[in-house]
Amino acid sequence: MRILITGAAGMIGRKLAERLAKDGSLGSREISALTLTDIVAPTAPQGIPTTVDTSDIAGPGEAARLVASKPEIIFHTAGIVSGEAESDFDKGYRVNLDGSRLLLEAIRSIPGYRPRFVFTSSIAAFGAPYPDAIDDEFITAPLTSYGTQKAMVELLLADYTRRGFIDGVGIRLPTICIRPGKPNKAASGFFSNILREPLAGQEAVLPVEGSVRAWHASPRAAVGFLIHAATMDTGPLGARRNLNMPGLSATVDEQIDALRQVAGEGAVRLIRTEIDPAIARMVDGWPRNFDASRALGLGFRADASFAEIIRNHIVDELEGRLPTS
Amino acid sequence: MRILITGAAGMIGRKLAERLAKDGSLGSREISALTLTDIVAPTAPQGIPTTVDTSDIAGPGEAARLVASKPEIIFHTAGIVSGEAESDFDKGYRVNLDGSRLLLEAIRSIPGYRPRFVFTSSIAAFGAPYPDAIDDEFITAPLTSYGTQKAMVELLLADYTRRGFIDGVGIRLPTICIRPGKPNKAASGFFSNILREPLAGQEAVLPVEGSVRAWHASPRAAVGFLIHAATMDTGPLGARRNLNMPGLSATVDEQIDALRQVAGEGAVRLIRTEIDPAIARMVDGWPRNFDASRALGLGFRADASFAEIIRNHIVDELEGRLPTS
Repeated sequence: MRILITGAAGMIGRKLAERLAKDGSLGSREISALTLTDIVAPTAPQGIPTTVDTSDIAGPGEAARLVASKPEIIFHTAGIVSGEAESDFDKGYRVNLDGSRLLLEAIRSIPGYRPRFVFTSSIAAFGAPYPDAIDDEFITAPLTSYGTQKAMVELLLADYTRRGFIDGVGIRLPTICIRPGKPNKAASGFFSNILREPLAGQEAVLPVEGSVRAWHASPRAAVGFLIHAATMDTGPLGARRNLNMPGLSATVDEQIDALRQVAGEGAVRLIRTEIDPAIARMVDGWPRNFDASRALGLGFRADASFAEIIRNHIVDELEGRLPTS
Repeated sequence: MRILITGAAGMIGRKLAERLAKDGSLGSREISALTLTDIVAPTAPQGIPTTVDTSDIAGPGEAARLVASKPEIIFHTAGIVSGEAESDFDKGYRVNLDGSRLLLEAIRSIPGYRPRFVFTSSIAAFGAPYPDAIDDEFITAPLTSYGTQKAMVELLLADYTRRGFIDGVGIRLPTICIRPGKPNKAASGFFSNILREPLAGQEAVLPVEGSVRAWHASPRAAVGFLIHAATMDTGPLGARRNLNMPGLSATVDEQIDALRQVAGEGAVRLIRTEIDPAIARMVDGWPRNFDASRALGLGFRADASFAEIIRNHIVDELEGRLPTS
């Protein structure tokens, strides 16, 4: 089985490639060739035949080149992140919308080719005001250009699937927590920072009230969603190919309680609250809670608790160890 | 005030131009210049300064040319109809999606220009399964390429509005009934045929059961929606710029009862039932009933009854007369 991952230098793409390399197979089929592509060269994982490629998927001929070997599975995770899609209008539409459409068109141009196409959409496809819990029938009325581009590609994915050009599954990822790496400037970064930094013995700033609620999934759960979307029976999806992924609805206070439970009061003391009205205002427009019963019924699985998210982060990112305090 | 109508040779575009010419003004402002464009030359109405233009809005430079005079109001009704968008995949995306996007981009490229942009979307933006009544929070999960293209342009309209490039209003038109002219091959044509043909003393074929329910608006009501969308205060819309238009939910039997009431049993006898399983199956996937309370609250007004639709058709299309039987 041949697999293509776009956006493979990104956090999710990289973790997916590592998981595929570790498993050596997807579903019941051995992986014969893994192609990783991104705008910067991705890192090849060990133990699997991997081609590392750099590409601008919106560039001329690039999409056709990427699908010429007819990979049976395409994980399309490439994209400009929300902050940049908002600050650079043209670039966001070019990469997130046109790049995705060119990829779908390249697939369509190959007669008889119909890959499983897994697209990482986002809960940014939704916009306030929200119901108490957002289900799969709630309108995609995004409040960012990034969310608009994701919702448009979802529509293409459903139509290209209906027409028989792909076998598409769009998964709307929750906020990924705990994001590994350094603190970044994303407005949502603090949800990860307030756990990751104290777990590494570092201070973290909390810019919102503890009562702020969000919808979370761990990197490990997100990779599990991608694998399941690639291997599931898509028959039960019918025409509705885009799914809210399950997650954990938690307040910041609940996140901090979980940190206390796993790492103790010393870790919690490293969090300094410093309200940032601009961030608080943005976060106010984000979805807080979902009814993911459809995805759960289709076999997608979320993290069991925030304590589990923290424990898995310690295993996956900190070699199983907390710093001695 | 300068006004541009795309798709001005189409039924709705033509009726809108006639209404604007008759009124001479829009809202409280006199119309100084009306530009009508379509892929074939539209007909200029009497009594108003009109420029007749032919254009392929998806052609190079065409969109820029159309907006160069900075019309304050743009009615964007141009598009490939649903049957053709389904049979010609490339053409549908090219005109309905790319043409609309090029128009929006041409507007964006003019600094400080921010026209009211009224887009005729469609209830085809929705797809089964439906709730009992579709409200403005129901997901746009279309089951045709046409509906997909409409839903994608709705997303663009909302994002371009949010970014300040246009002041957009998308209106999802019900099935237009009674469509004037000859019977056409659209699967939905019979909803009009079974009224229009008997009113003209001609036979009509009914291809579905009398219990089939649909969501209707008259051409006169549709033109009223467009005028209201062009003149309303858009402040109360917030970020949700696309609206289900009010209409009449009626069964075929109810349509026929109204025909009997207005034109007598003789007209009804001209309808011959001949079930077409292919049409019956297609119609089965169409929306039947809406909750248009949002649009009603914003001042959009539907036809009062099917009898009124029929009486207005007699006034507008038959010079107020029924054929003597």
